[in-house]
Amino acid sequence: MQAESFFSENIRKALKNDPPGEWMPAVPHECIRLHSGYPDPALVPYEQLKKAASDLLEEERDLPLHYLGSPRINALKKQIQDRLSARGIHSSDDELMISSGACQAIDLIARILIDDKTAVAIESPSYMEALEIFKNYTPHIMSIPSDEDGLQTDQLESMLEERKRKGLVLPRLLYTIPAFQNPAGTTMSAKRRTHVLQLAETYDFLILEDDAYGELGFTDFPPPLKAMDQDHRVLHVGSLSKIAAPGMRIGWITGASKFIRALSWFKKDLDHPFSQTVTAVYLQQTDFNERLAVIRDTYRTKCAVLISALTQYVPESVSWHVPKGGYFVWIKVPGADTSALLTQALSQGVSFVPGKYFFLDPQDGTEFLRLSFSYADKNSIVKGVQSLGSILKQNVRS
Amino acid sequence: MQAESFFSENIRKALKNDPPGEWMPAVPHECIRLHSGYPDPALVPYEQLKKAASDLLEEERDLPLHYLGSPRINALKKQIQDRLSARGIHSSDDELMISSGACQAIDLIARILIDDKTAVAIESPSYMEALEIFKNYTPHIMSIPSDEDGLQTDQLESMLEERKRKGLVLPRLLYTIPAFQNPAGTTMSAKRRTHVLQLAETYDFLILEDDAYGELGFTDFPPPLKAMDQDHRVLHVGSLSKIAAPGMRIGWITGASKFIRALSWFKKDLDHPFSQTVTAVYLQQTDFNERLAVIRDTYRTKCAVLISALTQYVPESVSWHVPKGGYFVWIKVPGADTSALLTQALSQGVSFVPGKYFFLDPQDGTEFLRLSFSYADKNSIVKGVQSLGSILKQNVRS
Repeated sequence: MQAESFFSENIRKALKNDPPGEWMPAVPHECIRLHSGYPDPALVPYEQLKKAASDLLEEERDLPLHYLGSPRINALKKQIQDRLSARGIHSSDDELMISSGACQAIDLIARILIDDKTAVAIESPSYMEALEIFKNYTPHIMSIPSDEDGLQTDQLESMLEERKRKGLVLPRLLYTIPAFQNPAGTTMSAKRRTHVLQLAETYDFLILEDDAYGELGFTDFPPPLKAMDQDHRVLHVGSLSKIAAPGMRIGWITGASKFIRALSWFKKDLDHPFSQTVTAVYLQQTDFNERLAVIRDTYRTKCAVLISALTQYVPESVSWHVPKGGYFVWIKVPGADTSALLTQALSQGVSFVPGKYFFLDPQDGTEFLRLSFSYADKNSIVKGVQSLGSILKQNVRS
Repeated sequence: MQAESFFSENIRKALKNDPPGEWMPAVPHECIRLHSGYPDPALVPYEQLKKAASDLLEEERDLPLHYLGSPRINALKKQIQDRLSARGIHSSDDELMISSGACQAIDLIARILIDDKTAVAIESPSYMEALEIFKNYTPHIMSIPSDEDGLQTDQLESMLEERKRKGLVLPRLLYTIPAFQNPAGTTMSAKRRTHVLQLAETYDFLILEDDAYGELGFTDFPPPLKAMDQDHRVLHVGSLSKIAAPGMRIGWITGASKFIRALSWFKKDLDHPFSQTVTAVYLQQTDFNERLAVIRDTYRTKCAVLISALTQYVPESVSWHVPKGGYFVWIKVPGADTSALLTQALSQGVSFVPGKYFFLDPQDGTEFLRLSFSYADKNSIVKGVQSLGSILKQNVRS
């Protein structure tokens, strides 16, 4: 029996274009993990979640362990609505759905909107997992450059104008991470936010706003695109992964009710009553604004430690963007092939993510690498950058 | 903005054919819930899961709360492999994946195999959620009748022969619940099991074996189809929902590694580290064979209570199948419209599922209804059947 002959046509194409598993080499356990997009272990509220799970099952017994869980699932929805509301996003019950993290949310949105005749626009560089998801649905992906102010909306406009003039397929969806971007760390300026919403109306596309880092601004947070979305063109995706615990898999989508209804219909893993109700109890038992202040303080400090180590230990030709929030510092190493450097770095006890994974055309990422200040502790960050610095000194043009 | 214009073509078709939300009317809280496919509340191990969650987080702290969780995720896989192995299914690590319950497993399998040019065969009646999933992918669904011995494989063969002769599209996948079927409660005979595997080879299709009730035989369990699957044509789907707690959302798929690899690639909710590791600890701390013996005893007794109440309280013309395992009794009420009867039943404090939901053509289910002995307690089962009996007496031909 030939397994391949049973795959549906699109799946066969997707598997052919993108053989699964092309990803980072294994990072040895003893390495300083500057590649990791994990939260700081000390900020993962395991004691509180333990208490929440225990209190929940003590009080509600089998209830949260059935298919539909307990009414506390609605409490989680309400808590998310309240948090969004404080940021200018007002969503009714039928405009919000819980997902298993942001990844499932992005996949579901692609599922209902995108097929192989449809196009998606992404900012470049972009979150690799989203890139992989879109590749599963369509070969038509357009990459729009970004700079210190995020997505270059004038470039997006030129692209749209040109394609319209030539009668080419226009994107149905733009995927963007406007706040504290992964991997670039940049934040879209207010002017560009207004511009991109205008373009969505003019050229009739939707925006998938991936807001996974949106509340992780060191000093302030810009209002999300969704808060400015008069024409209901934004599907806003959020997650507790970066501010609570990724292992709980709690994310959400807010948008026009017609989209939410379709998304719910195609979400066939049912819900996750246990995770969701434990999380609801955790949020009930926590002053989350206070908690977020601690989280932001921690990452601000760790980011400063990373930046200061970079200043001290890497060659002058290496440059980076200083982020105002999030988890990542995006680094340019002129003339380097960061994939090759990674092998050396791993053997010397430090990891990073080579730039190539964040681009539609991997070549565009050769000189770049992503460092994370979220997971490693401050001493490790300094030691890691020291090691990295000495590798870079041997490898870059000065 | 017109939301509909953004949906991809297939999704637009699926939404048009099957408007979401066509499902059971709300069941009042005080009703005796004979419609429910929930496990018995007394059999949901909430105390043990509470202890498991607590022990896990005490010992491993933040580890199981990160994206990849702790090594205990592999322990869960190993535990499932061991249980499958005891039933004659030997799967290596790359032949097994964990899913969020059986529903996500069925959806993922449909996702990689089925598109609108591909056909699926199902036994009739069948699990409504699977039916809804397949309808999301293809309009080509073929319904094969079943009787007391399960799927009528001779009818399947005739259908295949005829379609082949006429040059019509043949099914790529057969969906079946061979053990203690939902809703019919029937079990496929040994002879038919051999036959269906032969047909799969001859007519080159795959079999999705939904084994959600496979370990819930009251006296013995037949070996799964997968245990007889020489030609690697069976994708075996299992779940802990019916024997532990559905709210943990633990299911799995075993099959040829090429399928498992593709399924993993398209499963974009990542994994569920917290649920999975808590479950792994629960299984570690439990003698699960002993546990299963208790569960089977309980359901055997409750089934007997239901059957005895039926014998006592419903009119003679009403007939049913006595199941040898599982959760359900499938009932024929000659001349009745069970959908109409439900309204009356709900107002008199008892629920059931009308037959129409389990058929491709709802008309075929008009005279049928599904009762469940899993959720309600024994006294409630008797009271519920009494109420149902008096409603039926007023409504059936005698």
